[in-house]
Amino acid sequence: MGTFEKTKLNRVKRGQNRAIYDTEVIHQIIDAGFIGHVGYIYDGYPISIPMAYARKDDKIYVHGSTANRMLKAILDSGKTSINIMHLDGLVIARSGLHHSVNYRSVTLFGEVKEIVNDQEKTTFIKDIVDQMIPNHWDTLRPMHQKELDRTMVIEFTITSASAKVRAEGVNDEPEDYDLPYWAGVIPVKQVLEAPVADKGYPSTIAIPEHITAHYNNFKQ
Amino acid sequence: MGTFEKTKLNRVKRGQNRAIYDTEVIHQIIDAGFIGHVGYIYDGYPISIPMAYARKDDKIYVHGSTANRMLKAILDSGKTSINIMHLDGLVIARSGLHHSVNYRSVTLFGEVKEIVNDQEKTTFIKDIVDQMIPNHWDTLRPMHQKELDRTMVIEFTITSASAKVRAEGVNDEPEDYDLPYWAGVIPVKQVLEAPVADKGYPSTIAIPEHITAHYNNFKQ
Repeated sequence: MGTFEKTKLNRVKRGQNRAIYDTEVIHQIIDAGFIGHVGYIYDGYPISIPMAYARKDDKIYVHGSTANRMLKAILDSGKTSINIMHLDGLVIARSGLHHSVNYRSVTLFGEVKEIVNDQEKTTFIKDIVDQMIPNHWDTLRPMHQKELDRTMVIEFTITSASAKVRAEGVNDEPEDYDLPYWAGVIPVKQVLEAPVADKGYPSTIAIPEHITAHYNNFKQ
Repeated sequence: MGTFEKTKLNRVKRGQNRAIYDTEVIHQIIDAGFIGHVGYIYDGYPISIPMAYARKDDKIYVHGSTANRMLKAILDSGKTSINIMHLDGLVIARSGLHHSVNYRSVTLFGEVKEIVNDQEKTTFIKDIVDQMIPNHWDTLRPMHQKELDRTMVIEFTITSASAKVRAEGVNDEPEDYDLPYWAGVIPVKQVLEAPVADKGYPSTIAIPEHITAHYNNFKQ
């Protein structure tokens, strides 16, 4: 699938040995989650807000209310970036500054445009819901037109990206390995706990198979 | 402990019913983690990068290499913000656009300055390590002067902040509760898995009590 060209914008300056520009690796990190930090500039300040997303090919979709100040600022300026990060471990070293974390992180740059066609909007809202729980949208009450009308969908075409991944043990100073200290990695994982049914009908029926399947993939 | 004044910068525009300006709540959300998304502007783009932090009173500390382009940009411009977010649950509704997540999130604005005094720097680097694992720093090999010299510490004084918290069940349209669909909440939790000792000495000794205590607090 190729790599993203290293430019001034996406070149990883610190920890270059962990930098990855491979498209497939970057897509895998994106697909492992459904919430990313979307950046915008407000009153001169860089602000990032966690948002649900979906990826389709080289595009990321986010949605929000048509009154959303962040989405408007992003559309007006064309300037945003998205960071998606998964924490995988605490790296416990023999000295303070060699402490680290294992993680997978991507920073994405791209071009943004608003999706205005109703059918396209519906498709991408479906994708966002299905990124959270696969195969879910088609089991739900269909979206009302008025719901669609008050929802803004933004398409972010990834034009530049980089990943940083740390997935290894402790890297201490050579002379410190003889010190009588414990060191190692404590893996970190995000897990799902047992589903809690809503009042009424859900409390009397079985959880649908596609939700159970998703739960089983990530349960504690 | 009071509240943060609502200003143009920190006023929550979307979902105001979830907005919290209470200092104690905001501090609790900060203290529940150790990695936040720190924003900076580079080449006109808002970028956010996950960084380890510590909180002491109304101040946040982050550190990095003295060559770190982000920390330099933040110091030069004085413009940054920090978002810290904990994902607590998947909220599964009867219609797509009522899907949501339970979460605790803070966005912090403030003034930044570099800490240059060696003793202060050491204290705050200790705080960052101890935010990851409480009571840890004093059990480690003391920091070398050359390590301190190549580390930059930034103090971020929180001058404005807001939190958003969602911690509840499904909010569906009134008429949708009769639909024969499952709905509910799947709680999400970040957990620690069994520690993996580094080669050599650590593989032959017990894990120190303060690390075991931390592990027990968050283990799967």
